[in-house]
Amino acid sequence: MTGSLTVVGLGPGNPDQMTPEARIAVAAAEDFFGYFPYVDRLDLRPDQRRHASDNREELARARAALELAAKGGKVCVVSGGDPGVFAMAAAVCEAIDEGPAEWRDIDLSIVPGLTAMLAVAAKAGAPLGHDFCAISLSNNLKPWEIIEKRLIAAAEAGFVMAFYNPISKARPHQLGDAFAILRRHLPGTVPVIFGRAAGRPDEAIRIVPLSEAESGMADMATCVIVGSAETRIIEREGKRPIVYSPRYFKGGTGEAGA
Amino acid sequence: MTGSLTVVGLGPGNPDQMTPEARIAVAAAEDFFGYFPYVDRLDLRPDQRRHASDNREELARARAALELAAKGGKVCVVSGGDPGVFAMAAAVCEAIDEGPAEWRDIDLSIVPGLTAMLAVAAKAGAPLGHDFCAISLSNNLKPWEIIEKRLIAAAEAGFVMAFYNPISKARPHQLGDAFAILRRHLPGTVPVIFGRAAGRPDEAIRIVPLSEAESGMADMATCVIVGSAETRIIEREGKRPIVYSPRYFKGGTGEAGA
Repeated sequence: MTGSLTVVGLGPGNPDQMTPEARIAVAAAEDFFGYFPYVDRLDLRPDQRRHASDNREELARARAALELAAKGGKVCVVSGGDPGVFAMAAAVCEAIDEGPAEWRDIDLSIVPGLTAMLAVAAKAGAPLGHDFCAISLSNNLKPWEIIEKRLIAAAEAGFVMAFYNPISKARPHQLGDAFAILRRHLPGTVPVIFGRAAGRPDEAIRIVPLSEAESGMADMATCVIVGSAETRIIEREGKRPIVYSPRYFKGGTGEAGA
Repeated sequence: MTGSLTVVGLGPGNPDQMTPEARIAVAAAEDFFGYFPYVDRLDLRPDQRRHASDNREELARARAALELAAKGGKVCVVSGGDPGVFAMAAAVCEAIDEGPAEWRDIDLSIVPGLTAMLAVAAKAGAPLGHDFCAISLSNNLKPWEIIEKRLIAAAEAGFVMAFYNPISKARPHQLGDAFAILRRHLPGTVPVIFGRAAGRPDEAIRIVPLSEAESGMADMATCVIVGSAETRIIEREGKRPIVYSPRYFKGGTGEAGA
């Protein structure tokens, strides 16, 4: 008997940013796999079982969830944000791809969620209002040279950038290195947004020019958005400035206009 | 007396994908501005007023909403998907930037929503599981040369791509031209996902190799996702294949590995 596996996105952390679809999926499942703080967010019934694990064990967690689903379980794998953006959906797909043939028979569904960059962008204005990209700065799974190449390509082509996994204890230098690379390809006035815990009580949004951006302004839970040469700031008296990327392209203000 | 303006993302169309935060924001507002089909989605009370308008009038709509908010109104501007991704949040910011100084005093908030690419990606597997970008193919507001430059930069740097505004009656050629450009920079086997009305009753998801992708497979309401050279397909018996982009980078399978 083959069961089901649902990969659910819980959103950035504010319960009001979790979709009804995600709540329905959680209510329908019996076994929950995920990183501790995400499983801890769930208000589970006594008949629902927790299988929380550490952050770095994504593939092992995916395999354990698939094994239980293959035996007939109603299994849920939870992610913060959206499961498809640098999160558990790809790990589950990788495990299926490399796993036993019967795992392909499991009833797999993925429930999308609000990903961090959208929540952070909303707090700042509309920095993602024009073409943009999302890059994980973690070099655990890809070489730093590839990240460097992508940063330069994105800056020169005029993409706004959102950085996921900007920094960790094991990777203290990547974000500072990324800023140094970008300062060679973008004007120093380009706004950088550090968004931590957007929508949660401990929310912190900070906006600085690229010339002053430092890795110490971010931690593991921060999403960093770097504007393009077109991105603008609207100053307001007594209020946080608004950062937005116009829908139109003017050009001529930096590399993006080349 | 200065009022408030909230820009709200309604999600891709499935009511269960609209966040509680968005519902709360809609309940608190009195005047609603937006493109007809988005305003039509709202279940408004008799005391709430509709100001629906045509799709191409984004800046005029933003200004009308700001004028009413500046007079003390509790105004809501609605977008499909996320308002910060090729939608109304940037238009509102542009109007504030160019408008009278008192518009900067308006209490502005933006409520994020699930954007189309996340809903389409979830239906296909995890195609956005690695670094990706989002590009509007509309050349109403930027020259086609800039779009072409970005397509090539994204393909060569190994980004998965999501296309918004892929096609319209006024712009029938852009998507086909984009595929032709990408075929020169990516293997023909790269999967392309055409996702229409994801999560709605009339949902249609189609997956074809880049070599066979045609503009006729999309309409205005389609989000198109083009994989990178790393993106993989898992075939399943009696089920739609799973498309995913691995979290790790192998390289060597195309331009992305260069």
